[in-house]
Amino acid sequence: MNDLPDFDNLTGREFLERIWAGPGASPLGVLLDMRLIDVGDGTATFEAVPSRKFYNPQQRCHGGFAAALIDSALGCAVQTKLGKGVQFGTVELKVNYVRPIFEETGRLTCEGKVIHAGARMSTAEARVIDAKGKLYAHGSGTFMVFNR
Amino acid sequence: MNDLPDFDNLTGREFLERIWAGPGASPLGVLLDMRLIDVGDGTATFEAVPSRKFYNPQQRCHGGFAAALIDSALGCAVQTKLGKGVQFGTVELKVNYVRPIFEETGRLTCEGKVIHAGARMSTAEARVIDAKGKLYAHGSGTFMVFNR
Amino acid sequence: MNDLPDFDNLTGREFLERIWAGPGASPLGVLLDMRLIDVGDGTATFEAVPSRKFYNPQQRCHGGFAAALIDSALGCAVQTKLGKGVQFGTVELKVNYVRPIFEETGRLTCEGKVIHAGARMSTAEARVIDAKGKLYAHGSGTFMVFNR
Amino acid sequence: MNDLPDFDNLTGREFLERIWAGPGASPLGVLLDMRLIDVGDGTATFEAVPSRKFYNPQQRCHGGFAAALIDSALGCAVQTKLGKGVQFGTVELKVNYVRPIFEETGRLTCEGKVIHAGARMSTAEARVIDAKGKLYAHGSGTFMVFNR
Repeated sequence: MNDLPDFDNLTGREFLERIWAGPGASPLGVLLDMRLIDVGDGTATFEAVPSRKFYNPQQRCHGGFAAALIDSALGCAVQTKLGKGVQFGTVELKVNYVRPIFEETGRLTCEGKVIHAGARMSTAEARVIDAKGKLYAHGSGTFMVFNR
Repeated sequence: MNDLPDFDNLTGREFLERIWAGPGASPLGVLLDMRLIDVGDGTATFEAVPSRKFYNPQQRCHGGFAAALIDSALGCAVQTKLGKGVQFGTVELKVNYVRPIFEETGRLTCEGKVIHAGARMSTAEARVIDAKGKLYAHGSGTFMVFNR
Repeated sequence: MNDLPDFDNLTGREFLERIWAGPGASPLGVLLDMRLIDVGDGTATFEAVPSRKFYNPQQRCHGGFAAALIDSALGCAVQTKLGKGVQFGTVELKVNYVRPIFEETGRLTCEGKVIHAGARMSTAEARVIDAKGKLYAHGSGTFMVFNR
Repeated sequence: MNDLPDFDNLTGREFLERIWAGPGASPLGVLLDMRLIDVGDGTATFEAVPSRKFYNPQQRCHGGFAAALIDSALGCAVQTKLGKGVQFGTVELKVNYVRPIFEETGRLTCEGKVIHAGARMSTAEARVIDAKGKLYAHGSGTFMVFNR
């Protein structure tokens, strides 16, 4: 963590490409088997592998699993639009759960897309789908953007 | 997982008291150091211990951490109102992030409270506070309730 | 109101095409100058004309104005997917306000699109834009679907 | 509207007590028969009278009706915490619909309460109840706060 490059000299997209790509950049991501696989202009895609490790007592993936995946995709999508040294944070996250996620569901992807990129506030949306494009959860979030 | 008691002969509250209390009942809870510490009539309280293991690349706890904690508290609060064999699932979860959570923030608690307990749908709210009662996140959720 | 056709013999889309098209079918829509202008398979588009009549004390359109517009578009989009006699109701609505709406903003349109059409629950999203495509608000909602 | 007192010399609470109390201060409020009836420190209560004028084609009050009521109560609750000249706006609003509202439901009240009053962002919650305390809808919102 001491080896992090200087935030203030990177745009949001550069940060994503250099940091997220590195091992251990997102400890929670590592813990939940989530990985940034693509970054575009206003988009970010994660993959995640559901497992019994992420189950709740009802024997399916805990709601926190899809929420973490969606928050990651939303936040990184927002970050792709930020200039050098501009920081951001999640203000609010909303998730809709459409189908239960099991280990057998297999690899999921989640693409986040910016809806509105503002000077003080940005919003984004994301969907969690399986390899066949079947929808499991979707969500949106509001992010505060601030220059230090 | 084969040792789970028969769901259909337990009320929601009995399930919580017997299952959640056991080790490994909620694998994601174990992974995220979250633990059910109290169950009431329409309420459920979890504790969680923030750690660098749950950080995002911005070096604070990932939004998925508080989301998982709130979803747990909301869901269990709803479950305390369910009769024998009645199942439920999260339909929708919304989280507001009010302050960043760091490892130094220390032990958090999150009490979920049922707002509306309906025959087909229930809603609940929850707040994440530290040992001094300082608020870090809050949220609400909608849960579908169904008899098998 | 006694002249309403028999609900149970109409699909959701037929209901929209016959009822919403008629004068006074949606009293709140009339009061707020909102009008259904297009219906597709899983989509519904409304237009609305902002006016000082809909202002709040801060001298811009009240948040309830965009919320009503978005709820209308979401609900009708969901309704286009319903078979004969199937009823529905809004369970939950979330709106993001991106820019203030003034009388000078001019005619707005709001297209609702179904995200998930389920047997018990549907979700949809909508955006409020002006004549140039500029975004003012967006939202999503959860709808319960039930056969009588 | 030209007779509005100077915003910048009033605290949020003074504004509410002088402006909202006046006739026509909130045109949408007038149109929807909603009235601010009480203001406290971090709270604001509205009353509303459901009517067939606010119905949707399903013959119950349109979702926009409760949304407008809740947004009013949330926003005014937030405003009671603001100092002189501090402005605010709704960033995001979420409403849960728990029971249908009919004209026969009678007078409703909606109390908004601040959850978090921050320097840049505030959050609040509100519930819509009838004369007997029965719950019809509840919601929460996020508000941006800014000094001009």
